[in-house]
Amino acid sequence: MKRRSLLGRAGLAGVLAAGVAPAVHAQPTVRWRLASSFPRSLDTLFGAAEFFAARVKALSGGRFEVQAHEPDTLLTAFGVVEGVGSGAAEMAHTATYYFSEKNPVFALGCAVPFGLNSRQLTAWMLEGNGLKLMREFYAGYHIVNFPGGNTGAQMGGWFRKEVRSASDLHGLRFRIAGFASLLMERMGAEPVNLPAAQIYAALEKGHIDAAEWVGPYDDQKLGFVKVAPYYYYPGFWEGSTQFDFFVNQRAWNSLSGEHKAIVEAAAAQTHVQVQAKYDALNPGALKQLVASGAKLRPFPADVLADAFKHANDIYAETSAKNEQFRRIYADMARFRADQNLWFRFTEATFDRFMQAQKL
Amino acid sequence: MKRRSLLGRAGLAGVLAAGVAPAVHAQPTVRWRLASSFPRSLDTLFGAAEFFAARVKALSGGRFEVQAHEPDTLLTAFGVVEGVGSGAAEMAHTATYYFSEKNPVFALGCAVPFGLNSRQLTAWMLEGNGLKLMREFYAGYHIVNFPGGNTGAQMGGWFRKEVRSASDLHGLRFRIAGFASLLMERMGAEPVNLPAAQIYAALEKGHIDAAEWVGPYDDQKLGFVKVAPYYYYPGFWEGSTQFDFFVNQRAWNSLSGEHKAIVEAAAAQTHVQVQAKYDALNPGALKQLVASGAKLRPFPADVLADAFKHANDIYAETSAKNEQFRRIYADMARFRADQNLWFRFTEATFDRFMQAQKL
Repeated sequence: MKRRSLLGRAGLAGVLAAGVAPAVHAQPTVRWRLASSFPRSLDTLFGAAEFFAARVKALSGGRFEVQAHEPDTLLTAFGVVEGVGSGAAEMAHTATYYFSEKNPVFALGCAVPFGLNSRQLTAWMLEGNGLKLMREFYAGYHIVNFPGGNTGAQMGGWFRKEVRSASDLHGLRFRIAGFASLLMERMGAEPVNLPAAQIYAALEKGHIDAAEWVGPYDDQKLGFVKVAPYYYYPGFWEGSTQFDFFVNQRAWNSLSGEHKAIVEAAAAQTHVQVQAKYDALNPGALKQLVASGAKLRPFPADVLADAFKHANDIYAETSAKNEQFRRIYADMARFRADQNLWFRFTEATFDRFMQAQKL
Repeated sequence: MKRRSLLGRAGLAGVLAAGVAPAVHAQPTVRWRLASSFPRSLDTLFGAAEFFAARVKALSGGRFEVQAHEPDTLLTAFGVVEGVGSGAAEMAHTATYYFSEKNPVFALGCAVPFGLNSRQLTAWMLEGNGLKLMREFYAGYHIVNFPGGNTGAQMGGWFRKEVRSASDLHGLRFRIAGFASLLMERMGAEPVNLPAAQIYAALEKGHIDAAEWVGPYDDQKLGFVKVAPYYYYPGFWEGSTQFDFFVNQRAWNSLSGEHKAIVEAAAAQTHVQVQAKYDALNPGALKQLVASGAKLRPFPADVLADAFKHANDIYAETSAKNEQFRRIYADMARFRADQNLWFRFTEATFDRFMQAQKL
């Protein structure tokens, strides 16, 4: 069993001359605080921060510790950009479209209406220009970001009444996050952004008429089926939703090369684990929700067609006003066109055949 | 800049009392050899082993080195089960369905006809029983395995002549790997297993009539379009194909907890990177292949229907003879039924809408 520990100048010569190390318990040399935007009750999302922290600890032999904090214990759910940028916390785990009112570019690395699906978004990040372009943007906030999970295509949310056509969205008070709020406004709805913990009560009291969160597993925990039973799909504004780890730029620069590699690998491991967890847990939750009274409904065709038209208008208008948005969205849109060209052949025909079988 | 090195008994007290370490260049304390089943010319696949090795080196601060070897320099492409099991190499990177003639269980962790798509297979591995069950199986070969990449849904391969119905497969000499060979036999074809480097010549000389490999990017490198222009989809026997890292059991047991975590994280990072690389590269290659004369064709409906029936017969027969196969396949099949129930709602409707748009 070879173990390592800190090596001081004083002991260097003796240590280099010495043989195999005994087992020693390392003291942490780096201690970071991570602010999650998600409550502990969402084990998928708060769990992602805890999973990351456990990997960092294991990979560093206990020399690098990250402590995950719930909202309002270190930073607020929506206070992580300022909090990490200023160094009030070294890290955060969040969904960056929460901050699209600061700048719509925040949404491009997370989820935008009619964007990339989960695999496509990861491919754009890791092997396209996605992560590179988003990092240039985050540098302006003193943040270095790492993809840290994806939900897959989300459901379209819980509605107290059926949506029979696009006109049923007029005047609808809809809890929805991110850049999609603009789209809902164009469609005549009244978007409201609320953190997870406040949605159920707002829906129950009739302060809002509908709410979208993620998908069956998370939504079941939040109890929406009891107060708004119509469960719509697809969530066309979140064909997939990426979470990110934020790291304060100065804290990042202070890390050794080894600890930088550890943050990157632990984030990548979290990224794949979160999507796997959603995929594994959603089917069972969907069945339970249907048994509890959820009424699954596809959005009417005119809702999707109208939304697609409005979304493209918004992209054109935003691009005309915001050069950084224009440049990053254009890169994503080119990538998306190629991805959907390719996915329609073997991926789509395989999936469609399997979904049509009695399995 | 904090750096670490080996710590000897002799220097322990002095070192613990000392302060921050100076920068020292660590000597590797663990040196492993990895045998890839893939030639260096396939940068996706041999590249996966090199990516893994680079991550291990970075994560360990240079103390753990893995050297990737091409086939026939350390082990043969198909000799990695015995080679890693015996310790002739500490590691390998391979597609385990190559070994389904030893035992069809090998195919279950890689690709089987009408199996799981890429996200579903990863979810079964990481958050279902997949990896746990496969590890129990590999223990019998003195191997510990780690998922190490996925291609996504593969193409159905290159044919010298068009396939107009299931009867056109009769007598067809088809290069195909893994458990799918059994299926092709049932459908009247003559399956042949050849490693990558030998396929093109066999196709050119007419020793085989058709060959499947992976998808546009890898297939383009192997040049098949020049000798067999009909390019079929979907590759229903590889709805996704997982690669695995093999680690010799004794070598694994000799690692510190920290180095075990490093192998696991580097493998996970490779797993996500390989799928991203395939997704990013395939669209461009597909366009170039079509420009070079590839004729894209969907398999006729009777081919898929016949194949699905034969595949289920093979699963039933194999399960009756092989208890370990029965148990693992049954677990996968339960998982698959749930996955396809769920994916047909929001994932499929989102993807279908996007694929139908002019993007």
